[in-house]
Amino acid sequence: MIEPQRALAHIRMSVQSELTDFLLQQTQYLGEIGSELTPVAEAMNEYLLDSGKRLRPLFAYAGYLGAGGSEDSAVIKAVASLELLQACALIHDDLMDGSDTRRGKPAMHRRFESIHEQEELSGSASAYGASAAILLGDLALVWSDQMFHSAGLSQETLVRSLSVHDEMRVELMAGQFLDIHEQALATSSVARSLKIARYKSGKYTIERPLHFGASLAIADERQRHTLMTMYSEFGLPLGEAFQLRDDLLGVFGDPATTGKPAGDDLREGKRTVLMAMTHDRANVAQEKIIARYFGVEELDSTGVEALRTIITETGARQHVEDLIEKLTLTAQDALNRDEIDSSAHALLDELASIAVRRSA
Amino acid sequence: MIEPQRALAHIRMSVQSELTDFLLQQTQYLGEIGSELTPVAEAMNEYLLDSGKRLRPLFAYAGYLGAGGSEDSAVIKAVASLELLQACALIHDDLMDGSDTRRGKPAMHRRFESIHEQEELSGSASAYGASAAILLGDLALVWSDQMFHSAGLSQETLVRSLSVHDEMRVELMAGQFLDIHEQALATSSVARSLKIARYKSGKYTIERPLHFGASLAIADERQRHTLMTMYSEFGLPLGEAFQLRDDLLGVFGDPATTGKPAGDDLREGKRTVLMAMTHDRANVAQEKIIARYFGVEELDSTGVEALRTIITETGARQHVEDLIEKLTLTAQDALNRDEIDSSAHALLDELASIAVRRSA
Repeated sequence: MIEPQRALAHIRMSVQSELTDFLLQQTQYLGEIGSELTPVAEAMNEYLLDSGKRLRPLFAYAGYLGAGGSEDSAVIKAVASLELLQACALIHDDLMDGSDTRRGKPAMHRRFESIHEQEELSGSASAYGASAAILLGDLALVWSDQMFHSAGLSQETLVRSLSVHDEMRVELMAGQFLDIHEQALATSSVARSLKIARYKSGKYTIERPLHFGASLAIADERQRHTLMTMYSEFGLPLGEAFQLRDDLLGVFGDPATTGKPAGDDLREGKRTVLMAMTHDRANVAQEKIIARYFGVEELDSTGVEALRTIITETGARQHVEDLIEKLTLTAQDALNRDEIDSSAHALLDELASIAVRRSA
Repeated sequence: MIEPQRALAHIRMSVQSELTDFLLQQTQYLGEIGSELTPVAEAMNEYLLDSGKRLRPLFAYAGYLGAGGSEDSAVIKAVASLELLQACALIHDDLMDGSDTRRGKPAMHRRFESIHEQEELSGSASAYGASAAILLGDLALVWSDQMFHSAGLSQETLVRSLSVHDEMRVELMAGQFLDIHEQALATSSVARSLKIARYKSGKYTIERPLHFGASLAIADERQRHTLMTMYSEFGLPLGEAFQLRDDLLGVFGDPATTGKPAGDDLREGKRTVLMAMTHDRANVAQEKIIARYFGVEELDSTGVEALRTIITETGARQHVEDLIEKLTLTAQDALNRDEIDSSAHALLDELASIAVRRSA
């Protein structure tokens, strides 16, 4: 058996190659409609091909192998399509959050804002950037469908997998709405933040990709559902741990690896589980400092440092670290099942580690 | 044979009933995730069920009948899903255009902006409204897939129809981008505006729904392609005529029937075929008045009237009316083919008339 790291690197390369092929076709297609669409194709190519951990395709493919599936390039193409769905989520998310950067580069709306300025187009550059980001997100969502549908799966496999795929996307959008709504509420709550984390990224990043993989592999309904339940026992706690790591990275992450400015979530005033726990534990003096700095657009490094200190001193940071550890152990325990193909155990274990111990 | 008007009314009612059922299920589903999503479900229900001409489902179903398909509630549900796709397009379009109203009611982003104000939520009401509109548009897009996929079609029919459906949506998004890009250019061009009209609404409103209907009806590939080619000969000119009618309604339409303020396109500075033709024909004095009023956000009724006069006096208005007439005749001529099931001739003819002679 090859090492899990090498196996994952191999899958990642295959995903990259399928995305490259698909985008090449789509670039050609857009070019036939008109040269005005060249910047759209270029932006999508850079966005999709330059970086990304490919976590969702990897979980989906590992879920497929764990369900007894054997190597198949059609399945690689189907799971690679999840990267296009993720591109939609990120492009729209950055626009909604007003984030300027993504993976160290300008966010999509900023990119088109710059194009507007450079080409001296007329009207508002920021409105042009926002419109372009809305449409490129929509296009990425439709492309993800197209890539999945044209992957070359058998008719039966494709139809069987549509419903999990649809449900995953509804949950994602519902979770995103819960998130923006939470930002608009005056109070914070650990329970509500955990629910958002579950829908917005936990289920969508880990549990549903695993289910998607299972549905690509198993024809028998009862067998498929049994395995999906087990994947949920692994994927749900791990997904929460994944999101909690995200919370910590948004506050303590190194800009060199996250590609986001230091303390970005603090500047945005993101209502994370980490912040809800900090609020719960803060004394009056600490609450005052939070009220002064949290969600302030012009927050400088002094303000970021002041908030970081409180998050650490209240114990919220350590508590979240402990919670990540606990959730990860719960998840890994759930892997020890005969129903999950043993060849995939090491892969899933390695992926779990990547999801919760990452620095970006 | 029943009259085409009655037949269309019957299909429209069936579409309404399928949408009602689907939204009821989804409302329940969202409610299970959390009561925070109640406003999302309410907004979608009102948006989808209160009005709408249902043109795309009607063209798709007529295309299905014209291809020899027989009445089938699964097909009704599949074509009804196009209304959800259209909801996505309109919700995002209104946000991008900064339109305040849709069908006489607040646009989606304005609706959520009001909710923010009424509930005294924190942060920017307009940012909340914009985020909600982005997400509700995304959700409508995903729901349209879900409704189509769960329509109860046979496996073979469903898989066969996915590619036309995907292509239609890519064209829509590409057309939308061409449109926002055109708005940002300093020059106007009849040729470019016609191309946008073709992608953004012509193909998407008529040709592609007809193709979708054909693909739902015909298994044989060669037969299906023959019919699709004929549908293009009917649908493409009719689609352009449809968009040209839209151009005229955007300038001369009655707010009581369009549900939009008088001269809304003039205020938005929309680069339509009608305006490109007006520019081409305007003399220096008229160009000056256009430069003064066109695209001015605070445009009052005097300004609207001044622009309307120029559009009429240059002959652009009449030229567009003539073009609509010519395109419609070309389309109707293309209907006289043996390959198109005769039972659908009257339906398609009636739909053509609705598409180009409407007042809203």
